[in-house]
Amino acid sequence: MNTPAPGSAAARLGSTGNDIEHLPYGSYTHGDNGPRLGVRLGDHVLEVSAVLALLPSGELSDAARTAVDAPSLDALLAQNRTVWDEVRAGLQKVLGDPTHGEAVAAAAIPLADVTMGMPFTVADYVDFYGNEFHARNVGRIFRPTQEPLTPNWKHLPIGYHGRAGTIVPSGTDFPRPQGIRLDPDGVPTFGPSRRLDIEAEVGFVLGSPVPSGRVPLTEADNHIFGLTLTNDWSARDIQSFEYVPLGPNLGKSFCTTISPWITPLAALSEARVAPPERDTPLSDYLDDTNAAPWSFDLQIEILLNGEVVSVAPFAETYWTAAQMLAHMTINGAGLRAGDFFAGGTISGRERFQRGSFLEICWGGSEPMTLKDGSEFTFLRDGDEVCMRATAPGPNGSTIALGECTGRVLPAV
Amino acid sequence: MNTPAPGSAAARLGSTGNDIEHLPYGSYTHGDNGPRLGVRLGDHVLEVSAVLALLPSGELSDAARTAVDAPSLDALLAQNRTVWDEVRAGLQKVLGDPTHGEAVAAAAIPLADVTMGMPFTVADYVDFYGNEFHARNVGRIFRPTQEPLTPNWKHLPIGYHGRAGTIVPSGTDFPRPQGIRLDPDGVPTFGPSRRLDIEAEVGFVLGSPVPSGRVPLTEADNHIFGLTLTNDWSARDIQSFEYVPLGPNLGKSFCTTISPWITPLAALSEARVAPPERDTPLSDYLDDTNAAPWSFDLQIEILLNGEVVSVAPFAETYWTAAQMLAHMTINGAGLRAGDFFAGGTISGRERFQRGSFLEICWGGSEPMTLKDGSEFTFLRDGDEVCMRATAPGPNGSTIALGECTGRVLPAV
Repeated sequence: MNTPAPGSAAARLGSTGNDIEHLPYGSYTHGDNGPRLGVRLGDHVLEVSAVLALLPSGELSDAARTAVDAPSLDALLAQNRTVWDEVRAGLQKVLGDPTHGEAVAAAAIPLADVTMGMPFTVADYVDFYGNEFHARNVGRIFRPTQEPLTPNWKHLPIGYHGRAGTIVPSGTDFPRPQGIRLDPDGVPTFGPSRRLDIEAEVGFVLGSPVPSGRVPLTEADNHIFGLTLTNDWSARDIQSFEYVPLGPNLGKSFCTTISPWITPLAALSEARVAPPERDTPLSDYLDDTNAAPWSFDLQIEILLNGEVVSVAPFAETYWTAAQMLAHMTINGAGLRAGDFFAGGTISGRERFQRGSFLEICWGGSEPMTLKDGSEFTFLRDGDEVCMRATAPGPNGSTIALGECTGRVLPAV
Repeated sequence: MNTPAPGSAAARLGSTGNDIEHLPYGSYTHGDNGPRLGVRLGDHVLEVSAVLALLPSGELSDAARTAVDAPSLDALLAQNRTVWDEVRAGLQKVLGDPTHGEAVAAAAIPLADVTMGMPFTVADYVDFYGNEFHARNVGRIFRPTQEPLTPNWKHLPIGYHGRAGTIVPSGTDFPRPQGIRLDPDGVPTFGPSRRLDIEAEVGFVLGSPVPSGRVPLTEADNHIFGLTLTNDWSARDIQSFEYVPLGPNLGKSFCTTISPWITPLAALSEARVAPPERDTPLSDYLDDTNAAPWSFDLQIEILLNGEVVSVAPFAETYWTAAQMLAHMTINGAGLRAGDFFAGGTISGRERFQRGSFLEICWGGSEPMTLKDGSEFTFLRDGDEVCMRATAPGPNGSTIALGECTGRVLPAV
């Protein structure tokens, strides 16, 4: 691994998982100041515009300078890959330069002293269903008399639009949702969800708008700005009553949590791996036989009240982010800066590689035993779920994705 | 009907359907000026802030004055019913006052000279499935071996999130979407949709944000700002292959057209009627037995290349807008200014009261004969569809909702 120059901000502040090779972006508020676009180095946040102001004059384009002088990522997302790369290179230059080490370190704000908000304004949000283990498990549990995979599953990445307005940053607690679900006698009854669950996912943040759609596989790098851990909280009883024929709505729309830190795609260059082998011929626009690898070697730990209960392997996801993006736009639908999509619940072959309690506890019929000896199926009031993940980073570094945490409050 | 005072702007400019009792809002651009928030009177548009500036000083709150000095409805939607009513009352006062007639008329811009844009920024968009005739027809066509209504249909208003970023104002043509659909041998194949259709709907524009959800039936008036004709263009072949199990996505996400004119709720006070009788007991939050009537006496004419092919009766919609709003928020999901929902395809008992060609031509098996003698099932390149509607207005007036038009271009 490259050792940062002594005296540089990277040497003073960087830590494993959050060194100069990572540099995720977020929107922070510090006392009365903010929100401002920040970048994370170790356990500190730096104001992006202030760091880049230390570059020699003329080294930063006006487009970049304007885009980062902002409360969040919104203006930067509206730019393009050239500007995104310029901003990251500029940050790495200043943070690696001993000349600026003292000034940058003095201006760095400890994470404990800031409040992290939404890192960008979510435009449209699409949640995919791209993991075959998850789709087969859910199919068996929800539709036991039918083939678990629907006939379309291997032909296109199935997805649906979710509620953008209820995506919240990590640390936002929420009340248990209420809705209509079947009571034990099969009668539709209103009340608090009895089957509140999680879905461990990776979300992808889009930029470089395309008014008229069509982002081919080879163009995905130019539109996927970065990624973030995502928890698509799900009320399974509400969902299973409502979802035929138009898909999930109230069972999902109450809350989706993301990490407030967006890891830039460039930080994951060494984590790229091939997706699972394809066993069904694909339409040209989805055929990634000769495409660059678009999966990621990410192991997602799921912690329930601090105890690791599952480790979900993202690389098992069948459909890639590039395919999802190509699919989402093939009908001519345009992209806006701030569009966001998640790849679907991540599950592996083994029980404790599954990304939802629905699957781990098989619809409630196979409780798991926690360390304290108690049995667990679905979320109880007060339960806290945290997701975290590491991946191999550039130059032998490690990338620690920002944590994604939320807690269930009692129903209102 | 009240006759406007001679000499007033209402007397000079108003016309049947767009007189002082209607006053829909839109966002117009006039040459290099705009976009600006405008109000329609007859075949002219007036700048809202300029009209309200003619009120005696102190008669308009700062909140109202600031909210209308804007390019669109966004800022006004972020206010509340009190401000909405204040703005409408102020407009009616100035436009009905002979003192200001000459000045207002001189500043009025003919509609032919302006370009109408999106009247507001769509936050989240939910499309419901609230009409029983439509749901039964689609059920029979899409799932012929099953009960047409799913078991949940009479217990809650089924809806799903649609793509907010592809909602466009009337007059925006769009290319025929492409996607994966079954070829005649049942093989999934990529290509242009062969079953391109319309859905005649009414869309409801929301404001007065609620961070934590729960808008009871009695509060709907305070959050539904107004309504607009909506065409939810649908590629039936793409939709029918993709929609199980997570609902429609690419079959709908390419384009949704709305009228650029938002009719304020107050203009439809005389059009309020009761919805169809309920035959299934409802959960308390949906039970509108003793609620104010929340349906509307709106007849929606559907014109194909200028020929009226169907007249869809909105009042046949089973679920009301108030119920949809109560449902959408009962799980704690908040509302944002600019949230938008449509009530679902409107169909009546008779064939030519149906709101989609899928239903009128029964999945393509029963073509209709146009005036020129040709047979028609689904949309052809070059076809233009227009929707228009009138309703009874206050004081014996007529309200003509803004037209909603779009044309199919050849696939790209």
